[in-house]
Amino acid sequence: MTRSIVLVSGGMDSLVTAACAVSEVDEVFFLHFNYGQLTEQKELACFAALADYYKPFQAKVVDYQWLSEIGGSALTDRHIPVPEGKISSKEIPITYVPFRNAIFLCAAVAWAEVIKATKIYIGAVEEDSSGYPDCREIFFKSFEKVIATGTKSELPINIITPVLHKSKSEIVQMGIKLKAPFHLSWSCYSDDEIACGVCESCLLRKRAFREAGIIDPIPYRN
Amino acid sequence: MTRSIVLVSGGMDSLVTAACAVSEVDEVFFLHFNYGQLTEQKELACFAALADYYKPFQAKVVDYQWLSEIGGSALTDRHIPVPEGKISSKEIPITYVPFRNAIFLCAAVAWAEVIKATKIYIGAVEEDSSGYPDCREIFFKSFEKVIATGTKSELPINIITPVLHKSKSEIVQMGIKLKAPFHLSWSCYSDDEIACGVCESCLLRKRAFREAGIIDPIPYRN
Repeated sequence: MTRSIVLVSGGMDSLVTAACAVSEVDEVFFLHFNYGQLTEQKELACFAALADYYKPFQAKVVDYQWLSEIGGSALTDRHIPVPEGKISSKEIPITYVPFRNAIFLCAAVAWAEVIKATKIYIGAVEEDSSGYPDCREIFFKSFEKVIATGTKSELPINIITPVLHKSKSEIVQMGIKLKAPFHLSWSCYSDDEIACGVCESCLLRKRAFREAGIIDPIPYRN
Repeated sequence: MTRSIVLVSGGMDSLVTAACAVSEVDEVFFLHFNYGQLTEQKELACFAALADYYKPFQAKVVDYQWLSEIGGSALTDRHIPVPEGKISSKEIPITYVPFRNAIFLCAAVAWAEVIKATKIYIGAVEEDSSGYPDCREIFFKSFEKVIATGTKSELPINIITPVLHKSKSEIVQMGIKLKAPFHLSWSCYSDDEIACGVCESCLLRKRAFREAGIIDPIPYRN
């Protein structure tokens, strides 16, 4: 019997990653973080809806408010505006949250040790995305060495990144194949009733659905 | 100007590490975790006393109660008794807290990125200690690669481990040299008024002072 933990933010990429895990693993555990992000409530509602939909063995929410207290990102510091209207190119955008994926993975690894899970699924996207350093394969490979050297687990714990090298439109197509409930996901950087359609995350999602030739089931303001 | 973060639990090893950082760095930041450990209140009081003593640029306490919620260690799960009366040899003891140092270091790295600190001091001890996997040099070396690949920081962020290869008695001697206030530290795994003197952590500390030929300023029940 295999046990896996899936990091589920409630966005499109983690939704498709969860759909993938559910199709591959005997017992799936969902893990979500509240870290004072602008969309905390939205993400939490999506996480709850996805947990309700997929019925994982357990769904855990961890509170990391300190991450917004230290600030340093437009997603956690209300004094830094979220950029609108463009998809960033080479520079790491101000929406980068310091070391976020490492922080989330560490919690997942600790939990994995206790429940004897051997896989941690994370929906990071390397190329066709925002250019966050902690979304790159080289980071995940390094992280697996930290797991191998820093845990007591007898079984290896691996990081599984099903969408890492996919384009956003391929992720949409993969989700459609896996019958992922896209209507329950939220990608926008704002927490309005309706997705803004102009932040980088909305632009990436809209382009993905357009290129995949699929109609995005969620409405947009713009 | 150099800025450094020191992980300060309130125990002997982290105290001497803090003393070392204070002697080497322009601006020191103290970081402490409440994670539902048996000695949470004791450690917090020691941390406050040490912050009062050393007056770091900032002293931050992060709340990680989820770590005791997942359990898996005698230090966080009240159903697992803390072993008494012996210093463990080769096996990783039940007091190991899953992936704890990785979890703490990740938070320190995120904070370092925001405040532009370039060093993170941690008082891990490899040989003359409990055999925790996340206290080994190989783990810290791997972790530095994760920092290098997963952060946006332009300056490298290094992990400094001043006591890693020291024996416990050498740590005592180093602390004496640096005028570390040992009377403000707490090493015991229990949260009684007086240190038990029989848990592994007390045994290691008592032996260290004995071998160093120094009188430990804190009292013991046994």
